[in-house]
Amino acid sequence: MEAHTGDYTPLPNSEDVVESIIESQQLLHKGGDYGNADDNENDLLSPSSFKDVPVPLWWEQITVRGLVVSAILGCVFCLITHKLNLTVGVIPSLNVAAGLLGFFFVKSWTVFLSKLGIWSKPFTRQENTVIQTCVVACMGLAFSGGFGSYLLGMNGKSYAKLGPDYPGNRAEDVKDPSMGWMIAYLFTVSFLGIFSLVPLRQIMILKYKLTYPSGTATALLINSFHTVQGADIAEKQVACLGKFFGGSFLWSLFKWFWSGIGDSCGFDNFPILGLKAYANTFYFDFSMTYIGVGMICPHIVNCSVLLGAIISWGIMWPLISTQEGKWFPANLPSSDFGGLYGYKVFIAIALVLGDGLYNFLKISVITLQAIYRQTRNDQHLPVKDSILGEGTEEISQEEKQRNKVFLEEGVPFWVAGSGYVALACISMTVIPQMFPAVRWYYVLGAYILAPVLAFCNAYGCGLTDWSLGTTYGKLGLFVFAGWAGSNGGVMAGLVGCGVMMSIVSTAADIMQDFRTGYLTLSSPRSMFISQLAGTVMGCITAPLTFWLFWTSFDVGNPEGEYKAPYGVLFRTMAIVGVEGLSTLPPHCLELCCIFFVAAFVINIIRDTAPKNVSAYIPIPMAMAIPFYIGAYFAIDMFLGTVILFFWQRLSKQADVYAPAVASGLICGDGIWSVPSAALSLAKINPPLCMMFVKSADAIIGG
Amino acid sequence: MEAHTGDYTPLPNSEDVVESIIESQQLLHKGGDYGNADDNENDLLSPSSFKDVPVPLWWEQITVRGLVVSAILGCVFCLITHKLNLTVGVIPSLNVAAGLLGFFFVKSWTVFLSKLGIWSKPFTRQENTVIQTCVVACMGLAFSGGFGSYLLGMNGKSYAKLGPDYPGNRAEDVKDPSMGWMIAYLFTVSFLGIFSLVPLRQIMILKYKLTYPSGTATALLINSFHTVQGADIAEKQVACLGKFFGGSFLWSLFKWFWSGIGDSCGFDNFPILGLKAYANTFYFDFSMTYIGVGMICPHIVNCSVLLGAIISWGIMWPLISTQEGKWFPANLPSSDFGGLYGYKVFIAIALVLGDGLYNFLKISVITLQAIYRQTRNDQHLPVKDSILGEGTEEISQEEKQRNKVFLEEGVPFWVAGSGYVALACISMTVIPQMFPAVRWYYVLGAYILAPVLAFCNAYGCGLTDWSLGTTYGKLGLFVFAGWAGSNGGVMAGLVGCGVMMSIVSTAADIMQDFRTGYLTLSSPRSMFISQLAGTVMGCITAPLTFWLFWTSFDVGNPEGEYKAPYGVLFRTMAIVGVEGLSTLPPHCLELCCIFFVAAFVINIIRDTAPKNVSAYIPIPMAMAIPFYIGAYFAIDMFLGTVILFFWQRLSKQADVYAPAVASGLICGDGIWSVPSAALSLAKINPPLCMMFVKSADAIIGG
Repeated sequence: MEAHTGDYTPLPNSEDVVESIIESQQLLHKGGDYGNADDNENDLLSPSSFKDVPVPLWWEQITVRGLVVSAILGCVFCLITHKLNLTVGVIPSLNVAAGLLGFFFVKSWTVFLSKLGIWSKPFTRQENTVIQTCVVACMGLAFSGGFGSYLLGMNGKSYAKLGPDYPGNRAEDVKDPSMGWMIAYLFTVSFLGIFSLVPLRQIMILKYKLTYPSGTATALLINSFHTVQGADIAEKQVACLGKFFGGSFLWSLFKWFWSGIGDSCGFDNFPILGLKAYANTFYFDFSMTYIGVGMICPHIVNCSVLLGAIISWGIMWPLISTQEGKWFPANLPSSDFGGLYGYKVFIAIALVLGDGLYNFLKISVITLQAIYRQTRNDQHLPVKDSILGEGTEEISQEEKQRNKVFLEEGVPFWVAGSGYVALACISMTVIPQMFPAVRWYYVLGAYILAPVLAFCNAYGCGLTDWSLGTTYGKLGLFVFAGWAGSNGGVMAGLVGCGVMMSIVSTAADIMQDFRTGYLTLSSPRSMFISQLAGTVMGCITAPLTFWLFWTSFDVGNPEGEYKAPYGVLFRTMAIVGVEGLSTLPPHCLELCCIFFVAAFVINIIRDTAPKNVSAYIPIPMAMAIPFYIGAYFAIDMFLGTVILFFWQRLSKQADVYAPAVASGLICGDGIWSVPSAALSLAKINPPLCMMFVKSADAIIGG
Repeated sequence: MEAHTGDYTPLPNSEDVVESIIESQQLLHKGGDYGNADDNENDLLSPSSFKDVPVPLWWEQITVRGLVVSAILGCVFCLITHKLNLTVGVIPSLNVAAGLLGFFFVKSWTVFLSKLGIWSKPFTRQENTVIQTCVVACMGLAFSGGFGSYLLGMNGKSYAKLGPDYPGNRAEDVKDPSMGWMIAYLFTVSFLGIFSLVPLRQIMILKYKLTYPSGTATALLINSFHTVQGADIAEKQVACLGKFFGGSFLWSLFKWFWSGIGDSCGFDNFPILGLKAYANTFYFDFSMTYIGVGMICPHIVNCSVLLGAIISWGIMWPLISTQEGKWFPANLPSSDFGGLYGYKVFIAIALVLGDGLYNFLKISVITLQAIYRQTRNDQHLPVKDSILGEGTEEISQEEKQRNKVFLEEGVPFWVAGSGYVALACISMTVIPQMFPAVRWYYVLGAYILAPVLAFCNAYGCGLTDWSLGTTYGKLGLFVFAGWAGSNGGVMAGLVGCGVMMSIVSTAADIMQDFRTGYLTLSSPRSMFISQLAGTVMGCITAPLTFWLFWTSFDVGNPEGEYKAPYGVLFRTMAIVGVEGLSTLPPHCLELCCIFFVAAFVINIIRDTAPKNVSAYIPIPMAMAIPFYIGAYFAIDMFLGTVILFFWQRLSKQADVYAPAVASGLICGDGIWSVPSAALSLAKINPPLCMMFVKSADAIIGG
């Protein structure tokens, strides 16, 4: 669940996070030998401070207070995920914020109780891990539930946006969101992923020793909190987060007053580069969220986004729009797929698919190679023995303890297996009821294929930290859409996308959590249960919070704040899956091919060039996002990256506090969504409209 | 020259400044006995660090680099003084900034040269004092030269603003500014004050031991810079000043782009409290200058200003305007003296005069009492001997050295006396040539009376730190206006005001500088010469910088940024001096009387109430300023005071850095006046207009 750029999930800078955490510890310890994070020899993975701390029993790790905190934070992060998904669709890693806030809430609760003289159970790192897992599972559903992608593609607004004349866009293939079926649907599809790979956890974590960089980073973070100095730094980080949270919230409140009724008022439409640049979506919208996102995402992602914005909105769209009347009919509405908007969307899809396909192939190859090597090595190396820490000398005392904890409290195979089969049966019954276009044997086929793909994804994620959830989802989309054909293929495709995406992303998530749990000496059983609990919470809170946005804002309006860019994109892909490429406007296919190939070429250069060159080569996926959204959020994110860049140059503290600052900015703005939605529901409009006109016009007007 | 609120000059919080400097030293020294600043026993007045530093000869204290730095800073502070004078007319103490920047420039120059391997004379505190004196003298002329008050009252715009129908307002009584006569006029009137009181310096500084709180504070500051720790703090303060200077400048630059052509665009017209409040001038204009001013002025001044704004613009003007058509004709232009504007101006004058008269009487009584006591005590106490440090035991070694330096290098009486007479003769010849309405015997009369008033003012300022320059100026105004009568009385009154104001304020300034020089072991002779040099600079730079504003901005437009509020006020007072009170609109005299009496009553309560009560009683003079200017700058200043208040509560560093922050804010915005004026002269308009309309109107309009 890191920095989703619509398709895969590159963990933003998990290595940076690991390094910064270690560095922050070094700042405090001063001296001492800290090896590379990956060789498992640093203080945070085998800290002597934990030697005397007993490991709590698995059922002690799951606490009522932990679940309460998880539910609260899950709600908050669902809100933020929806907001990001429905505005521009870039979701940064909020794991650090979840870990920090979980720590903060429980810690201050225990401190508060102890001040009142009431004894409470001490707060352990295992409990912290359970909370973190639960929160991440809950907010994961807000993403994999498709509220910003395939579910949105089904609704009437996406249908209307494409227009009834668009070939293959049928009024029958519409299902508008409602609380009831969304909750039922989520309960049906979301648990399969958890059960699918549980039996394989020992092989992936202990035998293959997959690193899961973001899982490792989270574990390091949690371990660091539970040392004395770590708690100190964590408290300072929380204070920092709180300050920026408040500032961001107040700023959003302030902006509200001047934002008028329409979509052209207020700071959100501040033409900082002039009116001409504003017309081409180059302006700064004073959004604290995307400055925060820019501070969390790696510099290269932000620069890629800006480059994409310049190529598309700075160069291509102005050029293509000069062909109005020749390439496409003049005077079309701005969101007509037959006009410029069609080019924007299809070229973006070409880039996204090109990048996605390349990475799918690449990670498949890596995965297969690794599995092949692993099976061959089994004969030579005593890997089997090493699981129990016997027969090798290199294994440390701590690692032995970890292996012991990890192996002792497992989830029996029969629980996982029977759970998966039972859930699949329920799915086969329920989903065809909900979506008549989907036959029960489509669903069965999906669930037979899914565990293999889930394994591929979990393995690839463990190696590269990129979870390709939406890529597998798109695979499902095209397969189901083609299978069902023109009669209901669009709906079948979208549902297929959802089924695949859920199972595949959840499988990678839980394996990552097992890695975190392994490093924090948490029981796999408690991790499994907390993931289940988080998913239950997510099945309820994700639709609930989505409903808030859906009812209070004009979601999907391409001129509004809540553009929900992926909704229409997924619908279009499903139609292409059914109808073929004939629906594209003229010259669009050529352009799409160029960009599809370009995505491949850029990726090949990135992977083959020496590291000092490849670090400066943009990421095609990130470049695609502004293509149809606009350049404004690229400017926000670039500003975030510039701030972080200079901060890093000026102070060593930057890496320690930047995630806290960024999370504060994102959360503050995200929470403002709640009162903002309430005001909107109560039909209270902002009193004033701040607008910008040319100086000369102001005089004529006034 | 501190916090001129149009009439007298309360040194904002000179005692606070002294305390904060001592505190900042204490923070560094940790421990050690620091007495009250006034008992001359703290480290900064007799620091052992200065024991071995030889006192430079008087002509060594005046250096070329010092004069160059003075000229540069003099220019900068003239700009700022004009800007403040022409916008709202509140001028805070910039002495600290002058001292700091003087130190910074010369220090970095010597460090730079020494890095190049070039030897330069060490920078002494005496040289620093000379620079400070020179700069303050130079910027003093921008105030006492009347560019915001009496000189402005003479010009055609003030005449036009009152209107040709206004009784007593004659087209003959107009003299528009031009570089030539302004420079000549300043050279004629500005030097008399320096010569008038020089012979009395020993009596006032050594015998009467007048404290001159702001002079003492400046001396402490300069002494503190020239200790090792002091230089360290000074550098940090300069860094802080620099940061806020840059920020303030960039913010002003940023604001410019959206400020449009008219007077209703941009951040300067941000209706932060809504459009209704904006119509009543209650809004925040995002002016860094007045936030800085608010941070320098004492809390009670800022609160008084806000209270005045609420009483006038919040209550009285809305109430009076409901009487439109009854008390005054309907549909008058907003700046017609027969309408609401007349009430605003005359009620403000009543408050200003009431407060001024009260303080004049009060300080006269204190002065006379003190002189009476002093002359009686001469018989009993060995004060005479104490001047040379003999006959008393209490006098310290340092004080003996100070007295020695102060007495050895004097300015001979014949220089002062013949200088005064010669200058008076020149004045008597030149001024009637320039202003035909002024007869030579008026000038002679003024110069016979002036030394007495100058002595009173210098004495009062030494006791209370309030220089009543403009009050004596108004005295001159009424006397000359009445003397000349209806034929040219207005011009004669304005010139009389100028003559009086110059001599009386300069006299207090130089005596204050002697006090500073006394405490920094600077020679009175070098102080005298630097004051002369500063005045020469001021005679040229003050009109030059004024000319920049006059030619590039619409000075005096009551709807514009440069309202120049005092111009028309002084003209009106001169007319009242000639014509009497018959020119007032109906019911205005009653209201004026109420406020005149109220000013007296409030002052009496302030002076008789116990200190813990009187600290919360507003200052009528400060309340009067927003009466005709508007409430917006009161909001800026209140914001400044709120920021300072919380900063002081949160951190002990506030008192050390607040003056630097405030000076940075003021200077940065002030310097922006130069490029802003250049753009205006080049007829380059801001490209966009940021405006605010009701949300509903925006939709209809768009």
